[in-house]
Amino acid sequence: MSDDQLLERRRRAMGAAPVFYKDPVHIVRGEGIWLYDAAGKQYMDCYNNVPCVGHCHPHVVNAMHEQAATLNTHSRYLSEVVVGYSERLMALHAPSLTVLQMGCSGTEAIEVALKMARLFTGGQGIICSNATYHGNSHEVFRMSAGPFEPEYRRVPFPDAYRPIEEGLSETELGARYVAEVQAAIDAFAADGVPLAGMLFCSIFANEGLPNVPSGYMAEAAALVRAAGGVVIFDEVQAGFCRTGRWWGYEVTDCVPDIVAMGKPMGAGYPLSGVGTRAEIADVFHGKSFYFNTTAATPLQAAVGGAVLDVIENENVLGNVNEVGTYSLQQLVQLQEQYEAMGDVRGHGLFVGIDWVKDRAGREPDRQGAVEIVERMKEKGFLISNAGQHGNVLKIRPPLVFLQQHADLLLTALSEVIEA
Amino acid sequence: MSDDQLLERRRRAMGAAPVFYKDPVHIVRGEGIWLYDAAGKQYMDCYNNVPCVGHCHPHVVNAMHEQAATLNTHSRYLSEVVVGYSERLMALHAPSLTVLQMGCSGTEAIEVALKMARLFTGGQGIICSNATYHGNSHEVFRMSAGPFEPEYRRVPFPDAYRPIEEGLSETELGARYVAEVQAAIDAFAADGVPLAGMLFCSIFANEGLPNVPSGYMAEAAALVRAAGGVVIFDEVQAGFCRTGRWWGYEVTDCVPDIVAMGKPMGAGYPLSGVGTRAEIADVFHGKSFYFNTTAATPLQAAVGGAVLDVIENENVLGNVNEVGTYSLQQLVQLQEQYEAMGDVRGHGLFVGIDWVKDRAGREPDRQGAVEIVERMKEKGFLISNAGQHGNVLKIRPPLVFLQQHADLLLTALSEVIEA
Repeated sequence: MSDDQLLERRRRAMGAAPVFYKDPVHIVRGEGIWLYDAAGKQYMDCYNNVPCVGHCHPHVVNAMHEQAATLNTHSRYLSEVVVGYSERLMALHAPSLTVLQMGCSGTEAIEVALKMARLFTGGQGIICSNATYHGNSHEVFRMSAGPFEPEYRRVPFPDAYRPIEEGLSETELGARYVAEVQAAIDAFAADGVPLAGMLFCSIFANEGLPNVPSGYMAEAAALVRAAGGVVIFDEVQAGFCRTGRWWGYEVTDCVPDIVAMGKPMGAGYPLSGVGTRAEIADVFHGKSFYFNTTAATPLQAAVGGAVLDVIENENVLGNVNEVGTYSLQQLVQLQEQYEAMGDVRGHGLFVGIDWVKDRAGREPDRQGAVEIVERMKEKGFLISNAGQHGNVLKIRPPLVFLQQHADLLLTALSEVIEA
Repeated sequence: MSDDQLLERRRRAMGAAPVFYKDPVHIVRGEGIWLYDAAGKQYMDCYNNVPCVGHCHPHVVNAMHEQAATLNTHSRYLSEVVVGYSERLMALHAPSLTVLQMGCSGTEAIEVALKMARLFTGGQGIICSNATYHGNSHEVFRMSAGPFEPEYRRVPFPDAYRPIEEGLSETELGARYVAEVQAAIDAFAADGVPLAGMLFCSIFANEGLPNVPSGYMAEAAALVRAAGGVVIFDEVQAGFCRTGRWWGYEVTDCVPDIVAMGKPMGAGYPLSGVGTRAEIADVFHGKSFYFNTTAATPLQAAVGGAVLDVIENENVLGNVNEVGTYSLQQLVQLQEQYEAMGDVRGHGLFVGIDWVKDRAGREPDRQGAVEIVERMKEKGFLISNAGQHGNVLKIRPPLVFLQQHADLLLTALSEVIEA
């Protein structure tokens, strides 16, 4: 069967569900940072954050197999596997965050986080960024698109590269963005919408990984808390060592009240979670009827625990810092040669290259970025484009990406740019 | 560690998340229809519908293991495993339903079903039942509880045992309930809320498995379609042979436009899906940005396919019909002896016993039902109580429940009632 025939079958059985690339890749096998298509072509995976410890890691696969063969039920029975995982995961967080509510997707985690914030504060209003995506449910998607929503106020995300106002020092720019948060708080108050909190990705990943003026997050959080709201961080992309710290919020110097986790948490097994303070969890369970059939199961916990094992046993955090720093340095060197690489930035093994039409004008070049992504794929390297303008090349490999892989990627990237 | 200690650890790490039973059971192993607690006590599982082919079925476990060791990525790459499963599953549905959108939970399936209905019709109004639960997200939970929601109208669910009006023939009663649907359509029109459709569990499982007046569903559906709406069935509980038919809608003689599936679909692996007509899927994908990271993955598809294998290879459908019919007959005999068994009803291996204070008055006895559930658990049989009044004993075992199991259950039940 040709890929065209498979695409046609897919079109009939799955509708026009989105695929990557002009000519989609037909992947049949994965191992470590490598993916293989049906024709045997090898791709270096520089995109997928979900298989954080590498595709098909044997320790994770075995843990899944053992638990699946032993027990997998819902969470209304006691399970030491589930309790033990919850304890272990929350011990990796700031001490104030002690209680875990598991889910099956990042969207479900954000749903729970919003519900916790609203039930705990009694408020409804949520401050979010103006170029965000936190999930696909009706309520969560309200933050992403469409008309004005009275319960959500979208503030300009902090961005040192394309700032809201030119000519400011970093301190002034930070204050300028923080003032937008205060304006949103004031607008909710003027509209009679009690504040529930603010919800940001801790590293503004979908916004394009901007460099955030120092102190922004802590100051915004302080204003929100002073107005009676709580602070929610979406760690679905930033969490589990991606940034070179365990959690993205460690990069921000601000501990949230509620933290939503997902994607890498189960390395591909559907697993998400919300961590929070005991007093918030108590209100949540006291006032909601939340139950999730296939969440907080022994199988989720066994897989999630195996992911933590690998991160700890293979010094994944150390690798992220080492290879992440190296990759960023190399890309900054490359940037000197190419006008279109307007900005290179990131945290750990999550790097963005802001692709522009010319460096002085900083005009986003989405089409150019897409072209790079397509050519890199032809060369056997999977990356993507993201950001507010779709012009930020996103390099976000599994966390077991080594310096030798970075060298291959950088060589390929410079060849593609050259061509 | 004692169960009390584990419960206390759970309270700290998972908050007051719900557990079953006054003294929760601590389950550590499952096999077929049997569960085992930490002390080695054996329980017959007469409650869990998720492990539809039995706990830890080796074929499902092996399929999961093989695929997890081979590949598990998101759906923006082509995968023959995923396309093949989508084709195979939809071929089990009515011919008009051809396209599958996978998700990770029943809630996500209902979210997608609502979005499909609303985007396709351009309407917003959804007719649902007045004693329902379709999921835990903000939008889906609007149907279940709380104040009047302008976009949802809750109609009395059809019930021959506690009818909305006494003294009617079955035909008259059906017409009476159908008139409630028309009244909801008219009320939406009067309020200027364009109709999107109606959403019912095809067997009204959470309502308490009522006997539905013949023809009700088809007539209600016809009215909804005449008013421009579509028909959504929640098959999260009814689907995958539970009722003695592949789908609950086969019991109703009404083919829906959109069908939401979940729970048994992945036998405990988080897997749900929405099946629909091609024209609805086209509008959905054309107008939404729906993507779900850990859904429509090769691992979901491999597990889902293995569940279908077992259902086919082990003649599960035949077993459901045989043992379901037998169990219902035996329970009807038991009913003759016990006044409190007000009504016995169900479909296939999903049986409800309406527990009442006295048979003539039909007054629901929730406390009595809870007592039976607790005593059955002490005896080693897991059942539960459900329904609008919480008084319906719910017997819903894995579908590999055999006549010998039914006999053990019935003996235990009569002993408990006697005591």
